[in-house]
Amino acid sequence: MSGAHDAAARVYDAFDRIGAVDRPEVWIALRDRADVAAEASAVDPSLPLAGLLFAVKDNIDVAGLPTTAAARSYAYTPDEDATAVARLRAAGAVVVGKTNLDQFATGLVGTRSPFGAVRNAWDPTRISGGSSSGSATAVALGIVDFALGTDTAGSGRVPAALGHLVGVKPTKGLVPNTGVVPACRSQDCVTVFARSLDLARSAAELMAGPDGRDPLARADLALADLPAVPRIAVPLPSQLEGLAPGWASAFERAVDRFRALGHEVVEVDIAPLLDAATLLYDGAFVAERYAAVGAHIDAHRDRVGEDLDPTVASIVLGGARPTAAELFADQERLDTLGAAGRAALDGTVALLTPTTTWHPTLAEVAADPVGANSRMGRYTNFANLLDMASLAVPAGFVDGLPFGVMLTGPAFTDRRLAALAAAFADPTVDLLVVGAHLRDEPLNGQLVAAGGTLVREVRTAPDYRLYALDTVPPKPGLVHRPDETPTDTATTDTATGIAGEVWRLPARGFATFVAALPAPMTIGTVTLDDGSDVTGFLVEPYAVEGAEDITHHGGWRAYREQPAGAPA
Amino acid sequence: MSGAHDAAARVYDAFDRIGAVDRPEVWIALRDRADVAAEASAVDPSLPLAGLLFAVKDNIDVAGLPTTAAARSYAYTPDEDATAVARLRAAGAVVVGKTNLDQFATGLVGTRSPFGAVRNAWDPTRISGGSSSGSATAVALGIVDFALGTDTAGSGRVPAALGHLVGVKPTKGLVPNTGVVPACRSQDCVTVFARSLDLARSAAELMAGPDGRDPLARADLALADLPAVPRIAVPLPSQLEGLAPGWASAFERAVDRFRALGHEVVEVDIAPLLDAATLLYDGAFVAERYAAVGAHIDAHRDRVGEDLDPTVASIVLGGARPTAAELFADQERLDTLGAAGRAALDGTVALLTPTTTWHPTLAEVAADPVGANSRMGRYTNFANLLDMASLAVPAGFVDGLPFGVMLTGPAFTDRRLAALAAAFADPTVDLLVVGAHLRDEPLNGQLVAAGGTLVREVRTAPDYRLYALDTVPPKPGLVHRPDETPTDTATTDTATGIAGEVWRLPARGFATFVAALPAPMTIGTVTLDDGSDVTGFLVEPYAVEGAEDITHHGGWRAYREQPAGAPA
Repeated sequence: MSGAHDAAARVYDAFDRIGAVDRPEVWIALRDRADVAAEASAVDPSLPLAGLLFAVKDNIDVAGLPTTAAARSYAYTPDEDATAVARLRAAGAVVVGKTNLDQFATGLVGTRSPFGAVRNAWDPTRISGGSSSGSATAVALGIVDFALGTDTAGSGRVPAALGHLVGVKPTKGLVPNTGVVPACRSQDCVTVFARSLDLARSAAELMAGPDGRDPLARADLALADLPAVPRIAVPLPSQLEGLAPGWASAFERAVDRFRALGHEVVEVDIAPLLDAATLLYDGAFVAERYAAVGAHIDAHRDRVGEDLDPTVASIVLGGARPTAAELFADQERLDTLGAAGRAALDGTVALLTPTTTWHPTLAEVAADPVGANSRMGRYTNFANLLDMASLAVPAGFVDGLPFGVMLTGPAFTDRRLAALAAAFADPTVDLLVVGAHLRDEPLNGQLVAAGGTLVREVRTAPDYRLYALDTVPPKPGLVHRPDETPTDTATTDTATGIAGEVWRLPARGFATFVAALPAPMTIGTVTLDDGSDVTGFLVEPYAVEGAEDITHHGGWRAYREQPAGAPA
Repeated sequence: MSGAHDAAARVYDAFDRIGAVDRPEVWIALRDRADVAAEASAVDPSLPLAGLLFAVKDNIDVAGLPTTAAARSYAYTPDEDATAVARLRAAGAVVVGKTNLDQFATGLVGTRSPFGAVRNAWDPTRISGGSSSGSATAVALGIVDFALGTDTAGSGRVPAALGHLVGVKPTKGLVPNTGVVPACRSQDCVTVFARSLDLARSAAELMAGPDGRDPLARADLALADLPAVPRIAVPLPSQLEGLAPGWASAFERAVDRFRALGHEVVEVDIAPLLDAATLLYDGAFVAERYAAVGAHIDAHRDRVGEDLDPTVASIVLGGARPTAAELFADQERLDTLGAAGRAALDGTVALLTPTTTWHPTLAEVAADPVGANSRMGRYTNFANLLDMASLAVPAGFVDGLPFGVMLTGPAFTDRRLAALAAAFADPTVDLLVVGAHLRDEPLNGQLVAAGGTLVREVRTAPDYRLYALDTVPPKPGLVHRPDETPTDTATTDTATGIAGEVWRLPARGFATFVAALPAPMTIGTVTLDDGSDVTGFLVEPYAVEGAEDITHHGGWRAYREQPAGAPA
């Protein structure tokens, strides 16, 4: 009873949040909240996704709700769920509603919809990214646990990056497309957005497997696990030019994090992949969009500018022009580029890139709808064309807005990419300790229990002072005194600053450790004698008032090891 | 030295045979015989194909010889061998020359070439089949040991059937297409013709493996071996209608042969495959031919009817018309048909069909160049479109002309198909024995040594007589006397005719056994008491002159077991 009650309460909370965030453009259709609550209450709590709420991009069928693909003129109401939706419901998840998208899933911006431009969850003056705009934003705003998108050219990954989300784009065909409005039928993938990698992957796994109805559905192939010493590819520096301000540095930090995890990082010329990416819109492949919905747009040309988005209509109608012979020529070029791209990535476990290149404002996209959009697909456009799996993961923030990176590998390496991302998503933190947490000191066991390992012995910059605090067990307190010149305090000929150790902790272990830290100890940034900064122990000012200044010992161990009775 | 001498002699023999058969239309270019002999003499005799001679379809590059694709206006002279040719040469095989083909490999008839219609090796009033017309005919005429063809819609299989040859069409991409003039680039396969399955398969294996240059080349996948009790699919009876006279019976005999080998045969509705076959020429896929050579034909429209074949030019130029969107729609239909076809064949090890549907005369094809051709691809057109491996094997003769069947299975089942074909190519023979080879008689061990097994005990029709011959060991002689009425000879109430046993022998064992048969024994056809015919022992007439007629005993055993001293 209480489980069912909790499930219903979660539904009401979600609908309350929908009202509170005031983002009506996220949704094209919301189910009745009482219906959703009743369905949630009836779910078997032992199911793997029991009680989880999800949103569905409105180009994927949910029985009884209209499927619009963001065009009212196109709407139909299916009698049955898409295979992907049916499998998630069978696993206990509950649909909240259908979400807005770039019309006919044509766009990476989230603004190409008569249902309104979807504003970014973190900055409403900026775009959400698309085409799975509403689904990503519903997750980023904390309304649903996860959401379904689709991805032809990046629509399941770009909005993940701009929303600080995980975006799983499985290998083509792993999730059947039965009940999905085609964008480019042979390139489309159902995708998952979630705040947690584990949940996103679970949902993707639960949706996978041929359904006997989608002729392009494929069974998973068991591929090798990670090699013992993985090698990750990154683009050449020149192929990372043109990123938004600060994004190159953020990407470099992500690369460093993979290095810190033990990966060899190699620069690879990804020109074949970038060239393949341009084929998706600049060549004959766009005709697949015309094959999908061109007849509908042709028949409703009078609705362009009203029900039909002018940019989308223009792109799709352009797909009527290429000849089949031109398409075969493009396919030949794609095959050649694909082979070159595979050769370039040979011997690496995945390609690491930024997920997208910039995060424009709504106004910037309105000023240049096609140009602004096309910049965004630089690293995503080629994956489906070349039959690759891909996974977008958050990688911190730049100027307060999310930044994301992407791991892309050959078809059927989905689980390998997920394992890499899992390690990345739980990064390590280097922590300077100067007292009771030093090796062989009484509290060192806390670091070891948190998964820490000793990286190196260091000294702080000269302008730090160390005080013996009145704590149990005895601890020192490190204080920065940049206003005092080092010469005031240096007492030995051989070294200045305070001796300490840098320990590396997994993020989860670090978080647990810091959360349990007792006053007056604090964690801050400490400058080392080589000028670099490291996260380290400091102390609240009150605790050093009246405490013994032991700086001249040069460190806690030297102080503790002084001969008994020696002058303090 | 003698090996090198033999190799040169084989070359001179081959060129003598080229002159003797007087089929100049087989060749577009022949190498100088002295050059070929010198090359053959220099081959390391330990190589797997050492000393074997082969011909190359003239859409495949041989360094230093022009590649014409049967169009002089298209000709170029490559500096290096196609990958397939280079690998065969590296294995010790020697190129004799380049062979005629349906221009640009567009046709299944062998008549669409300004170098002349290639006449069938067995009946010069009939077509060779195409497009690999010259290669198949060079092998069928015994000039070369094997030859290379290409197969887009059946060009490596139809001419095999009409020439009583094995035609191996590997899984797409196993043999790189580097150095091959494309017909439909994504559908083309290099193929092998040979009189022996083992040689054809060896050549195919030696050519396989990515070469780092053909972007569509694929590494072989190890697929499961034959299941313990294989199940073979055959089309529904209605899907075998329209075969040439006598071909339906010949196909039924082939099916029976597979049954005799222990295979379960199941009728399967192959409508999805037959529908897919029609897409190759009736839909937008023909545009791939335009993408390959359309620009050349466009630029040489004044040569149509002279250097350029009118039928081929018309087909290729038609490929300029379809739009890319139409191609995507056709691809969607193909995907659906492919899934339905795979579902239909699920649980079977291969599809067994006739290779082609009829064997027209040159005059019949001239009267209806497109219609006559299109009938021929009924069972071959779908294999490459649906990514299947296929293997054509001889299956006897109808009215003195070759009849062939084909095994078709999923990609990468090439070796499984070859194993099935190997068993089929060594069929069993049922042999009636009535004397010293009966079970427990002195010569029975010869049947067992030849791999024979007892099938059943039978009696001949009543109009056979049995004589005790004057041989060591003692044997009877069976003689047909249809001119004498059975009532003249029947002597018992319970049975008429002569008792015997039917033993089943593998073809090789049967051949060895018959080759060692001493006079006066012969092998012929014997009618059994149920009216059926079986191969069985008979005897030369001279041996029964004066011999004792033991017919009234009803069999050799009854005669031998008569009480001593009983009246003869």
